[in-house]
Amino acid sequence: MTFDVVWWADDGALPAVGYVDQRKLPDEFARTLATNVDEVVAAIATLGVRGAPAIGVFGAYGIALARLLHPSDNDFARAVARIRNARPTAVNLTWAVDRLLAQPADRYLTEARALHDEQRAVDRAIGEHGAELMPQSGAVLTHCNTGALATGGSGTALGVIIEAHARGRKLHVYVDETRPLLQGARLTTFELALAGVPATLIADSAAAATMRAKDVRAVIVGADRIATSGDTANKIGTYGLAIAAAHHGIPFYVAAPRSTIDFSLRDGGGIQIEERSPEEVRGFGDTRAAPADVAAYNPAFDVTPGHLIAGIITEYGVARPPYAESLPDLATRPAFGMLLGRS
Amino acid sequence: MTFDVVWWADDGALPAVGYVDQRKLPDEFARTLATNVDEVVAAIATLGVRGAPAIGVFGAYGIALARLLHPSDNDFARAVARIRNARPTAVNLTWAVDRLLAQPADRYLTEARALHDEQRAVDRAIGEHGAELMPQSGAVLTHCNTGALATGGSGTALGVIIEAHARGRKLHVYVDETRPLLQGARLTTFELALAGVPATLIADSAAAATMRAKDVRAVIVGADRIATSGDTANKIGTYGLAIAAAHHGIPFYVAAPRSTIDFSLRDGGGIQIEERSPEEVRGFGDTRAAPADVAAYNPAFDVTPGHLIAGIITEYGVARPPYAESLPDLATRPAFGMLLGRS
Repeated sequence: MTFDVVWWADDGALPAVGYVDQRKLPDEFARTLATNVDEVVAAIATLGVRGAPAIGVFGAYGIALARLLHPSDNDFARAVARIRNARPTAVNLTWAVDRLLAQPADRYLTEARALHDEQRAVDRAIGEHGAELMPQSGAVLTHCNTGALATGGSGTALGVIIEAHARGRKLHVYVDETRPLLQGARLTTFELALAGVPATLIADSAAAATMRAKDVRAVIVGADRIATSGDTANKIGTYGLAIAAAHHGIPFYVAAPRSTIDFSLRDGGGIQIEERSPEEVRGFGDTRAAPADVAAYNPAFDVTPGHLIAGIITEYGVARPPYAESLPDLATRPAFGMLLGRS
Repeated sequence: MTFDVVWWADDGALPAVGYVDQRKLPDEFARTLATNVDEVVAAIATLGVRGAPAIGVFGAYGIALARLLHPSDNDFARAVARIRNARPTAVNLTWAVDRLLAQPADRYLTEARALHDEQRAVDRAIGEHGAELMPQSGAVLTHCNTGALATGGSGTALGVIIEAHARGRKLHVYVDETRPLLQGARLTTFELALAGVPATLIADSAAAATMRAKDVRAVIVGADRIATSGDTANKIGTYGLAIAAAHHGIPFYVAAPRSTIDFSLRDGGGIQIEERSPEEVRGFGDTRAAPADVAAYNPAFDVTPGHLIAGIITEYGVARPPYAESLPDLATRPAFGMLLGRS
């Protein structure tokens, strides 16, 4: 089964952007409406909507909503700035906002819908290219959530796994719980169960032992920003996984749309890493674990060097090292929308 | 400052065994008395007292208490059996109980105190040997809890860090929270604050990124069982840390008393790994994160190969590779109690 994680809500009532509130999963599949810019920004900032591509689609609908609600150009410009900056590391948000603003205002909603359709097509292509890299059978390991919930389409890394499963590969997925916000425990296990893919949850710290004990044959993750060297910013913990995979001789793949590649960045040194509240590490939900006054370092992402990555799966195929050649080449390819028969 | 985590309570009132109830930390530093055998057994079984060496010392005092309370040999024998089996896998508990029973009854308390003194001396020696390995200044990283709370003395790996701090080394400690039971978040941060050592809590998955971003200069952990090859079973997550430390060229140390070395084991392949309840991984304290029916793999320990370990710090000094030579040599050394001037 599939579902929309974000959508334009125009069922005759006031315009709004709909989203599945991921803070409430897996307990509740809450279809929620953001009816103004405050709610759009809050949904992004507090991870009601999360995953770089999904944030991009949601942000695009948010711009369309902001234009409808704020006829004054000054007010609209302020709204655009707030949406654009709701989360700093996701390149897709900026990209989606800029793409809408390049259109006349009366085409924002059409463009947001086109962007959403493209995201679905892009995800489908990533799933198809990546499925061929998965083992015929055996264990694979993934981190965070990179499924439909993260993209607005069918997902990136998790989409690859689900597509490989659909093609008959006998995969067993080990899912990192992904502290501090537990997207793996809450969201990825939920999506894998929906798709009927066998899965086992592990503590993040059990990943290296699991690679050895369970004969893991591939590790696949998503990305938030990729430099042309292949250096990849992704959810905190990705870097340690890539090191452990290399230690065990296990191929480590990144799956992400071309829009995640920042062609202006030569390497990962230039990627800004969002630091989130220490409170996320001191506890979870209503449970506090650490003393209230202990310092905590909570980078949301880390940067995995390209040399630890066996392949980067985009909608155009699998880019291989040396990435300094294979990735810039992707910038020269026609827009995926064009390949779908639209400009 | 230091504190006793277990003690003999004979302040003129009824005899009892005191302990800091670790189930209540870090919210409450609850000095609690076990005044009968039921309470001794319950404190061990429910992890009010935890850490193999601390359980051994506590159990020894418990035997002395039982002898005072149960003049009948039959009643006493029943009490001994219950204490011995309070946690069937804790080797130190059996060892400590047997050591007391080898003495005449009127020397139980003296022997328990001697055992406690030896534990303190062993820990102090580990701290002194290890402190010399810590950097003059900079970041160090540790995992789980290996301090006073775990041993009844001053701790193993954490004792090393605290001793180095006391000697004026300017350390900043990054503490892995240590999922699933969060001993790092709950206990290690508490002990470091008590000792006045600057510390920052991180998610386990942030360790590799922290090593790079914060210029970590040493990683130090405890051990649950060490083979003569140096292969070391310790809290789940230790193996991944050791791989990441090697990747960054950071020395990775293990601190443990000689009693942790299993001289009958040639390598880590023979170490049985306890798997604990999936429920620990599905949730966080009282908060459930994952769907209730998701499978979870929850090994309590992993095995770090000796070749990733720069040194193993015992009360006799620092064993260096090749461990197949340096560790068996420790079996030939005199008992540490003898070095203290008693047999």
